[in-house]
Amino acid sequence: MAKTKAFKPKARRPRGFEDRAADVLRAERALIRAASGVYEQWGFEPLETPAFEYADALGKFLPDEERPNEGVFAMQDEDAQWMALRYDLTAPLARFAAENFQDLAKPFRRYQYGEVWRNEKPGPGRFRQFVQCDADSVGAPGPAADAEMIALASEVMGAAGLSEGEYVIRVNDRRLLDGVLESLGTASLEKRMRVLRAIDKLDRLGMAGVEQLLGEGRKDESGDFTEGAGLDVEQRKLVLDLLKQSSISRFVEGQSTEDRNAAALERLETYFGELPTSRAAIEALHEIHGILGALGKTPAHWQIDTSIVRGLGYYTGPVFEAELLASATYEDGSPMRFGSIGGGGRYDDLVARFTGQAVPATGFSFGVSRFAAALSALGRLEGAGADPLVVVVAAEKDRMADYFAIAAELRAAGLRAEAFVGGGNMGKQLKYADRRGADFAVIVGSEEREAGTVSVKDLKLGAKIAQEVTDREEWAEQRQQFTVRRDELVSEIKARLSAAE
Amino acid sequence: MAKTKAFKPKARRPRGFEDRAADVLRAERALIRAASGVYEQWGFEPLETPAFEYADALGKFLPDEERPNEGVFAMQDEDAQWMALRYDLTAPLARFAAENFQDLAKPFRRYQYGEVWRNEKPGPGRFRQFVQCDADSVGAPGPAADAEMIALASEVMGAAGLSEGEYVIRVNDRRLLDGVLESLGTASLEKRMRVLRAIDKLDRLGMAGVEQLLGEGRKDESGDFTEGAGLDVEQRKLVLDLLKQSSISRFVEGQSTEDRNAAALERLETYFGELPTSRAAIEALHEIHGILGALGKTPAHWQIDTSIVRGLGYYTGPVFEAELLASATYEDGSPMRFGSIGGGGRYDDLVARFTGQAVPATGFSFGVSRFAAALSALGRLEGAGADPLVVVVAAEKDRMADYFAIAAELRAAGLRAEAFVGGGNMGKQLKYADRRGADFAVIVGSEEREAGTVSVKDLKLGAKIAQEVTDREEWAEQRQQFTVRRDELVSEIKARLSAAE
Repeated sequence: MAKTKAFKPKARRPRGFEDRAADVLRAERALIRAASGVYEQWGFEPLETPAFEYADALGKFLPDEERPNEGVFAMQDEDAQWMALRYDLTAPLARFAAENFQDLAKPFRRYQYGEVWRNEKPGPGRFRQFVQCDADSVGAPGPAADAEMIALASEVMGAAGLSEGEYVIRVNDRRLLDGVLESLGTASLEKRMRVLRAIDKLDRLGMAGVEQLLGEGRKDESGDFTEGAGLDVEQRKLVLDLLKQSSISRFVEGQSTEDRNAAALERLETYFGELPTSRAAIEALHEIHGILGALGKTPAHWQIDTSIVRGLGYYTGPVFEAELLASATYEDGSPMRFGSIGGGGRYDDLVARFTGQAVPATGFSFGVSRFAAALSALGRLEGAGADPLVVVVAAEKDRMADYFAIAAELRAAGLRAEAFVGGGNMGKQLKYADRRGADFAVIVGSEEREAGTVSVKDLKLGAKIAQEVTDREEWAEQRQQFTVRRDELVSEIKARLSAAE
Repeated sequence: MAKTKAFKPKARRPRGFEDRAADVLRAERALIRAASGVYEQWGFEPLETPAFEYADALGKFLPDEERPNEGVFAMQDEDAQWMALRYDLTAPLARFAAENFQDLAKPFRRYQYGEVWRNEKPGPGRFRQFVQCDADSVGAPGPAADAEMIALASEVMGAAGLSEGEYVIRVNDRRLLDGVLESLGTASLEKRMRVLRAIDKLDRLGMAGVEQLLGEGRKDESGDFTEGAGLDVEQRKLVLDLLKQSSISRFVEGQSTEDRNAAALERLETYFGELPTSRAAIEALHEIHGILGALGKTPAHWQIDTSIVRGLGYYTGPVFEAELLASATYEDGSPMRFGSIGGGGRYDDLVARFTGQAVPATGFSFGVSRFAAALSALGRLEGAGADPLVVVVAAEKDRMADYFAIAAELRAAGLRAEAFVGGGNMGKQLKYADRRGADFAVIVGSEEREAGTVSVKDLKLGAKIAQEVTDREEWAEQRQQFTVRRDELVSEIKARLSAAE
C-alpha cells in the first residue's frame, strides 16, 4: 500500500456513466423479472453474449490504424483485430445465430437483457451505458412471429403493472410505404430516406410540416432550411393519405372504438390493395390482426399506425413501437411525459450478412432504465420495494454477539435486519438507521440487558410525528419509543408492522 | 442492406469470450437470486457501477501515449484520459465510496453482481469476462463486520442448497504472520512477499516443500530452482508452527470436532499471544468466533486456517476463503474437484487511496460462473430448472390464430407453451419440439379440427420408450401419441405431468 500513497487519484466516474443505487435497481430488476417471466412462459430461452464483438461483426468497418468509428467503444485485440463493445443486443444475436446456425433448433427464440454501450456525447439523461431487454425469433418467416412479438410486448406491459389504455403498441409495415413509393417511381434509396425522415417528424411538425418536407422543403423558426423529398402535389397527397389510414384517433375522428384496426385494414385495402408491395404488407397485417384477436388483444393494446417508421435501420417488414399513455405529474404539478419505451420489427437480412443465406427474423426491445423509471413514477412494479428494515444498535461494543443474535431472530421472522457494524455513538447509530430508511431501531444497553428487556424506536412513526407535531417534542419522543420483553421483541415488531399497513 | 453485401464478415467471438446459453444462465441466475436474497435480508443495498472506470482509479498508472498495462481492457476517452473496464467489483466500490463519502450513511453496506473483464491470455475454462457477486461493508472498523462477512458467505452457501459439511469458510488474519515476521526481524516487504508466496503453495507442495521455500529455496522435478525466503532453521520452525495451529484436520490429527476453532484460538494464544501484532489478530479472531457462535456457525461452517493467504493483494487483517467440499463425479467416474469458489477479507487502505482518510472496509466475493457450475454438477440450486414446455404444431398455416389460442390456454394453466412460428413440415416441427426438450407436442390438423379433438405426442415418454424398446416401434409410437377432446387438453396434459413427477 505504501507505494500508492504518493499519488492520490480523484474519485470520479468517466463522463456519461452513472452509478445506479438501490431504488433504481430494485425497479429495474422487478421489470426484468416480470419481462423474463413472460418470455420464459412463451418458450423463449435466455442467452447472454459477451460485451465485446469483433467490430466487423457489428457492421463497423474500421481502418487499420485509425481510431474506430464514432458510436462504439472499440479497441484492438492482441492480434490487431478491432473489437467493440456491443451497442445493442440485436447485432450480437445475428452473430450468434450465424455462428451456431447448424446447431440451433429453429426458430431460435431467445431473450436477452444486459448492458449496451454507445460512444456518444453524453447529455442530461443520456448515458453511454444502459440496459436493454430483447426478445427475438430467428428463422421465423411469417407474420405469426411478428404477431407474437406484439403480443409479448403487450404481456410485458401487463406484467409490469400497466392496464388497458395505459399503453399502446403501434404497428406498421414498412412495405406499405415502399409500395406507394414504387408506384410513384420514386423508389430511389435517397428519396426513400428523405420520405422516411419526413414521416418520422410527424409528431413534432404535424401533417402540414410533413407535407412541406415531402415537397420542396421546410424552413424552421430559426430560419434553418431542410431540403424536401421533392414529391409533387399528387405524390404528396398519396403519402399523406397513407398516414391517415391509421387506427389512432389523432388522424381519424369519430371512428368507432369497436375494432379500429379492422377498419384501418379495410381502408388500407381500399386505397392501397392494388400496389403489389403494399398488398404484401396488408396481408401480413391481416394475419397479425387475426392472431392478436385470438389472444384477446384489441385496439386497447395495439393499433395500426402507418406513421411509425422506427429509425432508418435494418427493418424489412412489420415494425412496432411501444408507447406509454399513462401520465404522472412532477411535484410542481406539471405533466411527466414518457413516450416510447421500446420497439422492434422484422429484419430479414441481418443474419444473411454473415451466412449469405436468407434468415428471416423479428424482435422487440425495451429500454429497461427508461421504462423502469416511468413505472416507478407511476407507482407500478410489484416487488420493487424493499421489506421493512430493523437496525440493532451496537450499544455495548463487547456485546456484538447478542446483537447479531437479535438480528438473526428478526430475519428468521421474514424481516430485513442488521446489527450495526460501523463506528460511532448511539446518536450517530440512530441517525444511520434513519438515513437507511429503517422502520425500527432496537437498543439493548446495560439497563435493558439486566432487566431482560429491549428498547425499540419506531422510526417511521417518529418521522410522521416530526411532521405533524413540532411543539410537543417530549411527548412525541415518548410515543415513538417503547420497551418490550426480550422474548416478545419479534412478535411486537411484527404486530406494529401489520397495524401500520 | 445492399451496401453490406459486398463484404461478408465471419461470424465469430473475440477469443476468450463465451456465449452463455439457457442451462448455464438458469443456474447462474438462481445462484444470484439466492445470494441477493441473503444480502437483502441482512440489510445490504444493491449497487451497480459502470463497466468503465478511469484507469488511475483502478490503480493502473499508465504512460500517456503507450498502450495501457496488461491485465485490463483500456482505451482513451475523448479528452485523452485512460479508461479501463473493471477487473473486479472492489476497486469500483472504493471509487464510489470515496466519491460519495459525505452523502453515504456509514457503514455503507452494499452488494453488487456483474461482469468483470481481464485482459489475460485465454485458456481452457479461463475467460476474459466473467461474473462476480460481492458484498462489502465500508466504514466498518471492527471484527464484527468481518464476522458478518463470514456468516453471509455461509448463508449464501446454504441458500444455494449446500448442507453442513459440504463447504467450509477458511478464516485467517494476516497479522498473525506479520507479528511472527516482526519478531524475527524479517518484516521487509520483499521477505514478507516470499514468505507469503511460500505459504500459498502449501496445498501443492506440503509442509516439506513450504519449508524449503522458507529457507534456501527449492528445486522442482523439472530442475527449475525457486529462490527461498532465507529464514534459518529456528525462524522456519516458528512459521511452520503458525501454520499448524489451524482448526483443520490436515494439520492437527485426532482433535475433537466439538469446537476446533476454540482449540485453535487457545493454541494461537499460547504460542503467539505475546507478539503485539499477532495478538491483535488473535483478539479479532476471538470476537469473530463469539459472533459466529451466536449465529449458530460452528466448525461445520467455518474453520481457522492459518495457511490461508488470499493472494498478495490489499488485505490488512482477517481473510476468508470459501471452499466446496462436496464432490461429484464425471461420467467416467473420475472425481470432480471444485475447490475455492470465493473469498475476501479486510482492506482498510483501499478507499484512503482517494481520500487520504482511513476508511476501514471488509468484503466477500463469489465467482458466480464457477460456483454455479459446481452447484449444477451437484444437482443443487432450486429454481434453476425450466417449467414443462408444450409446442403447438403449426399443422395448417392459415390456422395460426387457433394455435396461438391453445398456447395461451396452456400458459394460463402455468405451463410454458408456444405456437410454432418457424418454417417446415410436421416432421421438422416435431424434431424442433424434441430438440427444445419439450414435454408435449400438440397437433390440430384438419381431421382433429373437424372432430373437435387434439392429438398430443408425449415426447418425454417417447424418449424413454426409445431407450427401452427398440424392436416394437409401432407399439411405442401408439403409446406416446394420444387424442383428447379440445376442451380437455389442458387438464389432460396437467394430469400427465403430475403423474410423471
